[in-house]
Amino acid sequence: MIGYAFMGIAHSQAWRNVHRFFPLPVTPEQAVLVGRSSAPLAEAAETLGWAETATDWREVIARDDIDIVDVCTPGDSHAEIAIAALQAGKHVLCEKPLANTVEEAEAMTAAAEDARAKGVRSMVGFTYRRVPAVSLMKQMIDEGAVGEIRHIRGHYLQDWIMDPDFPLVWRLQKDKAGSGALGDIGAHIIDMAQFVTGQRVTGLAAQTETFIKERPLLAAVGGEAGLLGAEGTTERGEVTVDDAAIVLARTDGGALATFEATRFATGRKNKIVLEINGSKGSLAFDFEQMNFLQHFDLARGDRAGFTPIQVTEPTHPYVAAWWPPGHGLGYEHGFVNQARDFLAAIADGTDPSPSFADGTQIQHVLDAVETSAANRAAWTEV
Amino acid sequence: MIGYAFMGIAHSQAWRNVHRFFPLPVTPEQAVLVGRSSAPLAEAAETLGWAETATDWREVIARDDIDIVDVCTPGDSHAEIAIAALQAGKHVLCEKPLANTVEEAEAMTAAAEDARAKGVRSMVGFTYRRVPAVSLMKQMIDEGAVGEIRHIRGHYLQDWIMDPDFPLVWRLQKDKAGSGALGDIGAHIIDMAQFVTGQRVTGLAAQTETFIKERPLLAAVGGEAGLLGAEGTTERGEVTVDDAAIVLARTDGGALATFEATRFATGRKNKIVLEINGSKGSLAFDFEQMNFLQHFDLARGDRAGFTPIQVTEPTHPYVAAWWPPGHGLGYEHGFVNQARDFLAAIADGTDPSPSFADGTQIQHVLDAVETSAANRAAWTEV
Amino acid sequence: MIGYAFMGIAHSQAWRNVHRFFPLPVTPEQAVLVGRSSAPLAEAAETLGWAETATDWREVIARDDIDIVDVCTPGDSHAEIAIAALQAGKHVLCEKPLANTVEEAEAMTAAAEDARAKGVRSMVGFTYRRVPAVSLMKQMIDEGAVGEIRHIRGHYLQDWIMDPDFPLVWRLQKDKAGSGALGDIGAHIIDMAQFVTGQRVTGLAAQTETFIKERPLLAAVGGEAGLLGAEGTTERGEVTVDDAAIVLARTDGGALATFEATRFATGRKNKIVLEINGSKGSLAFDFEQMNFLQHFDLARGDRAGFTPIQVTEPTHPYVAAWWPPGHGLGYEHGFVNQARDFLAAIADGTDPSPSFADGTQIQHVLDAVETSAANRAAWTEV
Amino acid sequence: MIGYAFMGIAHSQAWRNVHRFFPLPVTPEQAVLVGRSSAPLAEAAETLGWAETATDWREVIARDDIDIVDVCTPGDSHAEIAIAALQAGKHVLCEKPLANTVEEAEAMTAAAEDARAKGVRSMVGFTYRRVPAVSLMKQMIDEGAVGEIRHIRGHYLQDWIMDPDFPLVWRLQKDKAGSGALGDIGAHIIDMAQFVTGQRVTGLAAQTETFIKERPLLAAVGGEAGLLGAEGTTERGEVTVDDAAIVLARTDGGALATFEATRFATGRKNKIVLEINGSKGSLAFDFEQMNFLQHFDLARGDRAGFTPIQVTEPTHPYVAAWWPPGHGLGYEHGFVNQARDFLAAIADGTDPSPSFADGTQIQHVLDAVETSAANRAAWTEV
Repeated sequence: MIGYAFMGIAHSQAWRNVHRFFPLPVTPEQAVLVGRSSAPLAEAAETLGWAETATDWREVIARDDIDIVDVCTPGDSHAEIAIAALQAGKHVLCEKPLANTVEEAEAMTAAAEDARAKGVRSMVGFTYRRVPAVSLMKQMIDEGAVGEIRHIRGHYLQDWIMDPDFPLVWRLQKDKAGSGALGDIGAHIIDMAQFVTGQRVTGLAAQTETFIKERPLLAAVGGEAGLLGAEGTTERGEVTVDDAAIVLARTDGGALATFEATRFATGRKNKIVLEINGSKGSLAFDFEQMNFLQHFDLARGDRAGFTPIQVTEPTHPYVAAWWPPGHGLGYEHGFVNQARDFLAAIADGTDPSPSFADGTQIQHVLDAVETSAANRAAWTEV
Repeated sequence: MIGYAFMGIAHSQAWRNVHRFFPLPVTPEQAVLVGRSSAPLAEAAETLGWAETATDWREVIARDDIDIVDVCTPGDSHAEIAIAALQAGKHVLCEKPLANTVEEAEAMTAAAEDARAKGVRSMVGFTYRRVPAVSLMKQMIDEGAVGEIRHIRGHYLQDWIMDPDFPLVWRLQKDKAGSGALGDIGAHIIDMAQFVTGQRVTGLAAQTETFIKERPLLAAVGGEAGLLGAEGTTERGEVTVDDAAIVLARTDGGALATFEATRFATGRKNKIVLEINGSKGSLAFDFEQMNFLQHFDLARGDRAGFTPIQVTEPTHPYVAAWWPPGHGLGYEHGFVNQARDFLAAIADGTDPSPSFADGTQIQHVLDAVETSAANRAAWTEV
Repeated sequence: MIGYAFMGIAHSQAWRNVHRFFPLPVTPEQAVLVGRSSAPLAEAAETLGWAETATDWREVIARDDIDIVDVCTPGDSHAEIAIAALQAGKHVLCEKPLANTVEEAEAMTAAAEDARAKGVRSMVGFTYRRVPAVSLMKQMIDEGAVGEIRHIRGHYLQDWIMDPDFPLVWRLQKDKAGSGALGDIGAHIIDMAQFVTGQRVTGLAAQTETFIKERPLLAAVGGEAGLLGAEGTTERGEVTVDDAAIVLARTDGGALATFEATRFATGRKNKIVLEINGSKGSLAFDFEQMNFLQHFDLARGDRAGFTPIQVTEPTHPYVAAWWPPGHGLGYEHGFVNQARDFLAAIADGTDPSPSFADGTQIQHVLDAVETSAANRAAWTEV
Repeated sequence: MIGYAFMGIAHSQAWRNVHRFFPLPVTPEQAVLVGRSSAPLAEAAETLGWAETATDWREVIARDDIDIVDVCTPGDSHAEIAIAALQAGKHVLCEKPLANTVEEAEAMTAAAEDARAKGVRSMVGFTYRRVPAVSLMKQMIDEGAVGEIRHIRGHYLQDWIMDPDFPLVWRLQKDKAGSGALGDIGAHIIDMAQFVTGQRVTGLAAQTETFIKERPLLAAVGGEAGLLGAEGTTERGEVTVDDAAIVLARTDGGALATFEATRFATGRKNKIVLEINGSKGSLAFDFEQMNFLQHFDLARGDRAGFTPIQVTEPTHPYVAAWWPPGHGLGYEHGFVNQARDFLAAIADGTDPSPSFADGTQIQHVLDAVETSAANRAAWTEV
């Protein structure tokens, strides 16, 4: 695994526990943790349960005893690492967004296609797909629970950089992160919407905004682990990414969609809301109540309502591996479920989903958002 | 009062009860109900408490014993009636949207300005401003509860015409209604957003959609009272208004706004949601819980949360006239509160709000939505 | 109508508007308002829409042009007035609790039975039965939605006398009010539970408490209208009623029940919660969301959940008379619905419900609560 | 660790991960898993991460390389194992309820006191205390957030044995489980109430009920792991424990309390609700939204409301070790937090809480419930 900040911690938790809950034909071993600075790296490896450390990911990729490479670095290094790993015949799990540009994403997809021919698997880490309620949402839409889809309404709202003195961390720098709220959380909500509906955004109009245009430079090169405790200096630098993006879109299924991703929704810590309205019913998800899925079934007439299905029954996706009904899951379980699906696909020789091609399609949507926003919300085909 | 369908019933309720709850310097008398067909008109007048009926509004406007004209007709007759009434020196309360076109709205505003010089008052019926929680929302924003506004998120969601066999009532005909969901409910949510923030939409991009393009012609000329029970014939006609509108906007206060108005949000019967995020806090309203206003106060640190203020205390707007704390109000109370404000303004010789000029500004926004939608979501200045 | 405080205002609203919304074979006329002090009485009659006033209810009862007597006084005068009115052949609507003692209640019931033989109707004002969601709750239980009932869980929580300096109003005096939270709001929750389940409490154990044992005497003899603004003097008197009551009970249907009524549930302004769990499903009501009824249908398997049915469809009880779907009702609509049912029963010659006998049964339950509480929670048969 | 059913899985998860999230002076090693049948035991040890297995807990307790004994067996063996382990100088974490009888609990407490003198620590597994929102509830009450406490309202509602054909598992047998819903979940809600308020139940009246009196005998001796999938035979046996318990109580702080524990609350899967009302405010917790704590602050006047504090800030109890704000925890995190506190106490040489004495006090309350219920709800001192 490369990277040991927020995502590295979440992924380590997954690798450490996945075989404790899910029956698997293979048992993952946490071999090598890769980072740049030896000291914090060693400490992280100890804490997170990795047997070895390394500061050069190329060396690790070259090793025969490594089967899987898990890329948890900022977006600017995804392409280079993932392509090299795939070429070395390693299965690759890459954090989202897949890359910082469409070009990188396409190169990665090409590498994934080449590797696939040799039985090498690749997957992008759109982990919210693996929240049981979101998986159930897709399943129910596939079963026809909403009918013909008319409306998609997706928000991903945070507020963690509202303080104007919050420093210029890598996530606020375009060369590192690619974009701001758009790629970090907007990518998730667009992926979730496309995933559950099975439809794709075909065109859109968008606006983006950077509310705080300059921020203190970061005091020290800290990992993302210290993200919220990051300290700034007295010098200030330009914020080069969006703080918020709002989007109108249409899909290939004829639906109207609205998306919003922002880091300035005061009081909304990690609020992910997705609602789908169709000719037969509606489904709605809110991550603040992640163990519930709301279902409105038009056929129930005057006894209908938005039923909050508690997605903790053993017949619900992933849940049989976990706790009894009513004993809900938390944020990190999506990562464990994701690790399970990736390992199962490798063992079964099937293609895990979402693929790098899926990640590239998301990248095209993000690119269209930026193009439209730069062009006074002009309608932009994806 | 002219018109006795849905709005006529709601307004009659207001005129009948306003002086029973609010201390007023004047006591309204329900003089004449005006409609086109004598028979149902007489029955409506009896039911709704009007002393007389008339089929020619011009005659009524000419009477000396009439002080106030309340226009509850479809939008295509607003301008003609309101202008004539104002010219006859009658105070005018006109249902929203003010008119079907910007031109009509401007002519009405000019008439209102002329009349105002003679002490004649006019007001548009954006009644949701008078829901106590919405009034409190404005009051708290004025007091600084949210600080600098970054995000406005407004939805008005209904689902009452989802059935493809629901007939072609006047609200689905452009010549009568002006527009569809946009003018009927979109006008409300845009007005609410502008009202509470004190900001105005300066530009926008929009898309509209008509999901069901043809519908059965209406069996009989029924009033709107029978709206949901309306029956269709086997012949079908074209739906000439939008079923849904989605909008991205910017305000003169630098906020990003998203609006959605639809009659196809399955299961959302009359869901009006408005959330404002600012540098100091957030406020959120949901009409499904109309007696509550949610407030997030950033200053409360790790004890903050979206506090559902139960807006039933005597110190809250309008509430002292009603019931003890916790004994909530319903839909029609906004109309009673509105009647109170209009009568108080007439008695005090002050200008009631929202004025016809305010209504015209909304009309400009609606017009920009239609222009943008017709032009592939091109950015359109208001 | 006798009494013009809180209940008098609510009842006047009902008489004024009931025929405006419901088709009725008779149209009520607001004839005489009765009270003790001429001056405030005249003002109240003017405000509330009564044609005449009188200070002696006996005279009014003797009049031939009076058909209905509506008793809205404190509980200590219910028996005398209601019995006299019934004997005079007037239909009687009496506020709850029916009386201050079981003896009074039984005498009233005997008078009601006698009068009934002459076609005179009587009803107790357990108005929450007429909240559409509560009526629907009963209807669904009758239809079998919950099956065999195991649990009844009812709370009626308020907090309006938490301030130790709130004065000793009549509701805090045993000789006027009979009891405190128990008779005022406990009576409602017990009636609601018995009404919706069709079961009756057979035995119980209870505790009551008076948290604030002395309070300032009331400054002036004000009506209940000024309840929350009541001012006290520097002298203090003893509070002779309960502030709170908690009850365990069993019903004739084999259910376990818990009830709680309190005026010291900080922040709960008028929270009425009733949940029924049975072998086939559950139903739950919360007055803070009075336009919703929650239904859990076990038969829906892993798609079940507590569905919040929005009780605003025309097919729901009482709703056809009111507004379109999603346009919710408020507190006072229960009174209008109650007036409708009472008038319809009078016109049809049927027995309105709840009868005085029903009110007397509640009185027996309240009496058992006091007996048990006085006896260290000893199990007490009703 | 002894036992590898539901609690064994949850505890293993805790031991496996506690040092990955919390900085600890010691690192736990998962040494020996103890059970009765070799085959499933070996599989469980492999899955749950234990190095060795053993079928005789006495041998394990005798080993020098064992420091901690974690008792996850049914209640009937708690006393024997825990006392032996303490006498052998092992720190003991024992699942709740501490024992099946008061006598056993007292013997265990005596053993714990003796062991304590030698620096040996003991703790009972009332894990819900370690849900961050519950810990914060206690902290805020200690800080004075609710003032003088008037009401305690606690429910623990489940529905997993509603099916009359659900078999007679050990949890439904008095000789194994001690009691039914009472000891299993009632113990939790009473502990939570006493923990957050710092008050103790002094007397109570109670009723219990067994709705389904006979059930199929269990087909095979399965572990609790297969609890919900347990199959029955055609023979039936008597259910010897309660299905539900309802309780009225008073505390040494003068509060009125109501408790309910049931396995027949249709649709309530694992609903734990606790509300405290006091002279200055209220606090309310609902496990279905376990990452939130509701706080009503009376001092906020007409801006007060039940604020849902999202307990995911780094300043909240335990949260700094976990994820960023808004990334909520799940059911098992309470066990990890509990393991952390137990290990920290061992390392620091302090007394962990809740102690065996605390567990014994709960046992006295449970005993009083059974005594009262057996005696027609007679008031019973604890």
